[in-house]
Amino acid sequence: MAPFSFSVEAQDAASRAGVFSTPHGEIQTPAFVAVGTQATVKSLAPSELQEIGAQALLANTYHLMLRPGAETVKKLGGLHRFMGWNGPVVTDSGGFQVFSLGWGITHGVGKIGGIFPEEADRAVRIKDAEEARPRLCEIDDGGVTFRSHIDGTLERLTPERSMEIQEALGADIIFAFDECTSPLHDYAYTRQAMERTHRWARQCLQAKTRDDQALFGIVQGGEFRDLREESARVIGGMQFGGFGIGGALGKKKSDMHMILDTVIPFLPQDKPRHLLGIGEPEDIFDAVERGIDLFDCVIPTRLARHGVALTKDGKLVLSHRAFSEDSRALEEHCPCYACKEFSRAYLAHLIRTNEILGLRLLSIHNLHFIFKLMRDIRASIVNGAFQDFKREFLEYYYQKRAALA
Amino acid sequence: MAPFSFSVEAQDAASRAGVFSTPHGEIQTPAFVAVGTQATVKSLAPSELQEIGAQALLANTYHLMLRPGAETVKKLGGLHRFMGWNGPVVTDSGGFQVFSLGWGITHGVGKIGGIFPEEADRAVRIKDAEEARPRLCEIDDGGVTFRSHIDGTLERLTPERSMEIQEALGADIIFAFDECTSPLHDYAYTRQAMERTHRWARQCLQAKTRDDQALFGIVQGGEFRDLREESARVIGGMQFGGFGIGGALGKKKSDMHMILDTVIPFLPQDKPRHLLGIGEPEDIFDAVERGIDLFDCVIPTRLARHGVALTKDGKLVLSHRAFSEDSRALEEHCPCYACKEFSRAYLAHLIRTNEILGLRLLSIHNLHFIFKLMRDIRASIVNGAFQDFKREFLEYYYQKRAALA
Repeated sequence: MAPFSFSVEAQDAASRAGVFSTPHGEIQTPAFVAVGTQATVKSLAPSELQEIGAQALLANTYHLMLRPGAETVKKLGGLHRFMGWNGPVVTDSGGFQVFSLGWGITHGVGKIGGIFPEEADRAVRIKDAEEARPRLCEIDDGGVTFRSHIDGTLERLTPERSMEIQEALGADIIFAFDECTSPLHDYAYTRQAMERTHRWARQCLQAKTRDDQALFGIVQGGEFRDLREESARVIGGMQFGGFGIGGALGKKKSDMHMILDTVIPFLPQDKPRHLLGIGEPEDIFDAVERGIDLFDCVIPTRLARHGVALTKDGKLVLSHRAFSEDSRALEEHCPCYACKEFSRAYLAHLIRTNEILGLRLLSIHNLHFIFKLMRDIRASIVNGAFQDFKREFLEYYYQKRAALA
Repeated sequence: MAPFSFSVEAQDAASRAGVFSTPHGEIQTPAFVAVGTQATVKSLAPSELQEIGAQALLANTYHLMLRPGAETVKKLGGLHRFMGWNGPVVTDSGGFQVFSLGWGITHGVGKIGGIFPEEADRAVRIKDAEEARPRLCEIDDGGVTFRSHIDGTLERLTPERSMEIQEALGADIIFAFDECTSPLHDYAYTRQAMERTHRWARQCLQAKTRDDQALFGIVQGGEFRDLREESARVIGGMQFGGFGIGGALGKKKSDMHMILDTVIPFLPQDKPRHLLGIGEPEDIFDAVERGIDLFDCVIPTRLARHGVALTKDGKLVLSHRAFSEDSRALEEHCPCYACKEFSRAYLAHLIRTNEILGLRLLSIHNLHFIFKLMRDIRASIVNGAFQDFKREFLEYYYQKRAALA
């Protein structure tokens, strides 16, 4: 039996409920992959991730190649064993960190320029990116040369080297090395980068040697409809095990919708589709509606580290005075450890005193919230009720959020 | 039945194996009480503490009176419910933070001046203390006036107010309000502070209203033998539910031994004795040998936050290059989660990348190590083999430590 298979079990218009089988178990899709940049989902233990329903984790090639080094991880038995996670693991190509974080800083933009509702979160995102910014980034047709943000060491990533590193890390799902452009790049540059990405995609397919890893290609093309279509035709026509949609998703939500509407028809029906780096509930709904199967995003854990809880009533800022004597659970009926055992007042106290347990408990809750949302979305697809569920959820989410603001 | 009882089940010379019953369960002594300053043992959840064998937790009155406030904790059902810990809880009197941390900074000394082997740990200790230093501290015979280190609010602690706060917090074991002097205070001042402490002790006994809390008196007297004897006679003669030995324990380990040898004969045999703020393995052995039943100390969790693991081979500094490809468990045969599931190399990676999971796992291991040490000490007392166990443990601990240095 092939180590990978993807079957669509139900479809509701374009949205799909699938099962993606990997050598380390199945992923029920649509699924949210929790981000563990440094081979750890910030503040959480694998046992907790399992308990709250995590199906798969994504670690960052860029960070791990620099520290502890891919060969070290390989010697220690590969990422699964290294981080104590026996479920499916994903690594990205390294491209996003090398290029996009650098651009993001330079131009002060994120993955979708200007659509983020929380300025505070955005400032944090940019600050985090600054810390991880490569100090130099020179692109040529062969690859990219950069300096480590840790110690200034000169490093080079090429399609072949990205494959070599990702094979050493040993994730189940790996990504082709791509050039990720910023929303501020012009058409000509975006085309040039896209064409380079297409050449690199072929090189990655050729360089790949392991059969127990699924290689995903990445569609680029920025916010330009014709480039996205061209990239989807080219990448979608290659023999990848799945497809990522990467790069800048435009300046507003409608740009992301246009990009998904443009790209998805050209991707094979029988392979999973991963929208890279997106994870706000409203974006998840909009993307699932168009046929996306996989997501990854740091938002649930990043919000937690800044004292913000995701609930069906919208986002709660725990440091708000209103919570300091609130003896209720964070979210009524939520079965997660944070909600079962503690009050909003205690969580607020932990956040105000900068106690680690506070961000741990919010990370548990926020990821549980997103995993449950994905399960509920999947069930609604199976029941042919995706649109109803989307409308109900978002109406309530926004209505309450407006009330809290 | 009285809510508190203390029975000595076995004795080996002066060392005692006891059972201290509280309204929230029994404490098998000698015991190490984990410190949870802000009503949380840094980085750990109550479920983890239970799993690694924590018997009781100590929270700091000074910190909690300022934030979230004792009345808030009371409204939320008291400390046990607030922090989700159903076992015995201890609060200190507030005196140590108000006085001693202030003095400690001013003079650059800790609880035992000059005996700490790890300068790095010491620097950290002083830095932590600085952050929590009250901004003003004026003592009179009625109490102490100080400014909150958080927002500068003028606060006052008196024996009566300390009792009121500790009753509102609702711990099982509470402490009389005392004046804690520095090793740099002279004889005359130390006597004056001791006499004030004795008057305050009587006031605390009178002010106490709850029957479900055991009030412990605190013996002071600095490093002066005659003052320690006088304080032990006076405090030991009052109707306390137990006794703490507080304040400066001198400039070297032999001073601490002298103080314990002086004080303990004057304390009632039928009450538990708590050596405040001490927790290095060698000090625990020396104190248990002299008849101490209870300890509390931040060392296991503080070392963890700085990447240091307690093992029977001494202290391991995980950031050391030697561990970066070490696939062995932190400590062979240790059943804690950190040792069962992860390698030294992974822990070293987490510490180097400042990932929270690293200090969490080391906190789990270090506290497990100390709790197990206390259980082993207790068993050795029951078996009449305390001296043998002490010799074996410390020989190995120091021999290996020397080898690692």
